[in-house]
Amino acid sequence: MSDEHRVVIVGGGFAGIHAARYLKGATVQVTLVDRRNFHLFQPLLYQVATGWLSPANIASPLRVILRNQKNARVLLDEAIDFDIAGRRVILREGQIEYDTLIVAAGSGFHYFGHDEWERLAPGLKTIEDATDIRRRIFQAFEAAERASDAETIREWLTFVIVGGGPTGVELSGALGEIVHDVVKHDFRKINSADVRILLVEGAERILPPYAPSLSASAQMFLARLGVTVRTGSMVEDIQSDAVTLRSKEKSETIRCRTVLWAAGVHASSLGRLLAEKTAAKLDRSGRVIVEPDLSIPGYPEILVIGDLACFAHPPEKPLPAVATVAIQQGRYAAELIKHRLRGEQRAAFEFKDRGSMAIIGRAAAVADIGRIRFAGFTAWLVWLFVHLMNLVGYQNRLLVLIQWSWSYFTRNRAARLITGEGSLLLPHADVKTKKGKDDQSFGRTSRL
Amino acid sequence: MSDEHRVVIVGGGFAGIHAARYLKGATVQVTLVDRRNFHLFQPLLYQVATGWLSPANIASPLRVILRNQKNARVLLDEAIDFDIAGRRVILREGQIEYDTLIVAAGSGFHYFGHDEWERLAPGLKTIEDATDIRRRIFQAFEAAERASDAETIREWLTFVIVGGGPTGVELSGALGEIVHDVVKHDFRKINSADVRILLVEGAERILPPYAPSLSASAQMFLARLGVTVRTGSMVEDIQSDAVTLRSKEKSETIRCRTVLWAAGVHASSLGRLLAEKTAAKLDRSGRVIVEPDLSIPGYPEILVIGDLACFAHPPEKPLPAVATVAIQQGRYAAELIKHRLRGEQRAAFEFKDRGSMAIIGRAAAVADIGRIRFAGFTAWLVWLFVHLMNLVGYQNRLLVLIQWSWSYFTRNRAARLITGEGSLLLPHADVKTKKGKDDQSFGRTSRL
Repeated sequence: MSDEHRVVIVGGGFAGIHAARYLKGATVQVTLVDRRNFHLFQPLLYQVATGWLSPANIASPLRVILRNQKNARVLLDEAIDFDIAGRRVILREGQIEYDTLIVAAGSGFHYFGHDEWERLAPGLKTIEDATDIRRRIFQAFEAAERASDAETIREWLTFVIVGGGPTGVELSGALGEIVHDVVKHDFRKINSADVRILLVEGAERILPPYAPSLSASAQMFLARLGVTVRTGSMVEDIQSDAVTLRSKEKSETIRCRTVLWAAGVHASSLGRLLAEKTAAKLDRSGRVIVEPDLSIPGYPEILVIGDLACFAHPPEKPLPAVATVAIQQGRYAAELIKHRLRGEQRAAFEFKDRGSMAIIGRAAAVADIGRIRFAGFTAWLVWLFVHLMNLVGYQNRLLVLIQWSWSYFTRNRAARLITGEGSLLLPHADVKTKKGKDDQSFGRTSRL
Repeated sequence: MSDEHRVVIVGGGFAGIHAARYLKGATVQVTLVDRRNFHLFQPLLYQVATGWLSPANIASPLRVILRNQKNARVLLDEAIDFDIAGRRVILREGQIEYDTLIVAAGSGFHYFGHDEWERLAPGLKTIEDATDIRRRIFQAFEAAERASDAETIREWLTFVIVGGGPTGVELSGALGEIVHDVVKHDFRKINSADVRILLVEGAERILPPYAPSLSASAQMFLARLGVTVRTGSMVEDIQSDAVTLRSKEKSETIRCRTVLWAAGVHASSLGRLLAEKTAAKLDRSGRVIVEPDLSIPGYPEILVIGDLACFAHPPEKPLPAVATVAIQQGRYAAELIKHRLRGEQRAAFEFKDRGSMAIIGRAAAVADIGRIRFAGFTAWLVWLFVHLMNLVGYQNRLLVLIQWSWSYFTRNRAARLITGEGSLLLPHADVKTKKGKDDQSFGRTSRL
């Protein structure tokens, strides 16, 4: 047992769990290190933030995922350093030796040098982010219902989402649905026509990596849900009751109480640590530039995969930080290790692009699958199917399907609980969040 | 509209929502004030604490409950004072006038004068309590798995539950199940035989209000699940790594890292406020002693119902603070108001005792229903049915049924997420919780 090849995987996201699972049956000892005890299905996180699903619906305990894999174990701990020469990962409580190290620590949001914005405009990366955003959204409606002054009501009913990528589009579409589902039926005073949802994107169109025709479809669907898209606009300042936007022509201040962040992404700080110790290079967003086989130059025993890796080997431009890339890289890493143990060569990693999709509200989506592009209800059904099939755990699939069907037909949102610290506080101009206190020490940019 | 009879209900627990719902169709204006936006089905809260159900499964948004009731509205705010002469409730943000006031602010835990124990031994009253306890339980197993020192492992695997009432019995039984479900299958190092679960009760038997034969059955079922019952024992001291128990003969210190509180209950501090302003009397646990029609002596327009009320009119001994009493009192309060509006008399409140039940693990329960007493699997099925039928919201019933069936057959616990503040921290001797900072100012003893 003890002379088996030891694989240490840092991070239980898509890349990490797929690397672990594809090592099933191999004569290796796998240790998956994560500081959370569950794998999170991030593509559906915005549905938790908008009260559609419960956190447990999109999270699977890591121990359950690896329950039947005899050669794998889970360690709930945090990687804080690497001893490259000694082939050890330094953990918060102890250390662990490896023969092959797979670093899949992911990424988090960054605020273009404005860290003070994080408290005012939370990003959507963790379960806690999602319940925090859920609390802010539903508290805003409650505050508007309670307020008597027209200007205050207007501020509470204005929502600004920063970033027109898939997350921003999905979040603002879901917010548009909430207005129809919840505000119209459940509140006595506020008028759903007074709700303003603004989606702000710096580029000239939303969903910039998609085909222009799909961006246009997405914008049309969003308009139907009452979302105003503001392209070519950058955020200049965020305050507790206002956002200042700057476009080519002018600067504009919009009074609002809820700002959500879906813009800049930055890789885990473990990337920088690795770079310092191995002379690997980082790209602009802190991702580790990897070799064609996903290893670090000069260190074939260290593989970097998922959002933390920058894979830029022609003819491809750098691969995007999305789940499908992470999953394929996790699988590749496992296969590479198995090949090496057999003394065989393995061709370079190659990404098979199966397309990308974004959902807009209850019954519309845009999809860009190979040469096929489609939008609307069909795209939405495909989106539903793909995401449901990819959820880990049969119970979750069943529960999510039921919850989706139920929400679809009844327009009810059962999971719209206002919970957590601050939930007993009534919202004031400066809503305190649970963030910003501890999180710095934990490097919110790391998903690990 | 404006000269309609105004009913203000403080608190959206069992008593409050039943009062509101039974006023449907009456020519009154109902305002339900709560500082949470949802009604919580507390009898199943322990299943959230043990990772069986998700918070949203046992919570229903108040606005959904009252969606189709035209004469009712929900106000998310906190009652902080009463102006009895002016017939107004003072809220944190404003005030509201009433013609009839129903106070149903519930109760919370009290620690026999040891408030410092709250941080060390959380009680189970709110959604946040439940996810906090869930985090502590599953973090304890993770810490034991990671530890190498035998004494430390032993401390992390020892759980003490204080209080042998229904909550303590259900919690310790569920904890016993976790050992079978989770520890045996999902952990590689720790041995399920090393887990110790201690249920401590001051009286001479657990479930003191039940018949002695049922207490004996419950103790036997608990023993099968590996729970050790220690009756006739009081808690003398709680520290971060030990509990000291005192019985008639001796005092004993047990080293352990997880203590859960299911013992003393104390009424909301709104009860004391009411008593000061009306000369109503309080009982030992801070409940307002009410008239036969649930009003306060001298103030027929103020009704106190649910856990906050002490109803002690012979031949009955004071009614217990349980859901069935709260539900019946809520209904009575509504009927009383309707009678008064018609100028009719209403007989005194009378509690119809339909019996009590407690569940012990996956397939056993004890029930004390009128003259019938039974235990085991049949009692468990009855328990299941009764609780399922009482859950508010059809979606919740369906989801809970599926989750129960799934858990029953697979012994899986999908909702065992370690989340919230402190979840990224690895457990140390002194695990900080989100409590103890803000909660004092919010009077944790109030459910409102």
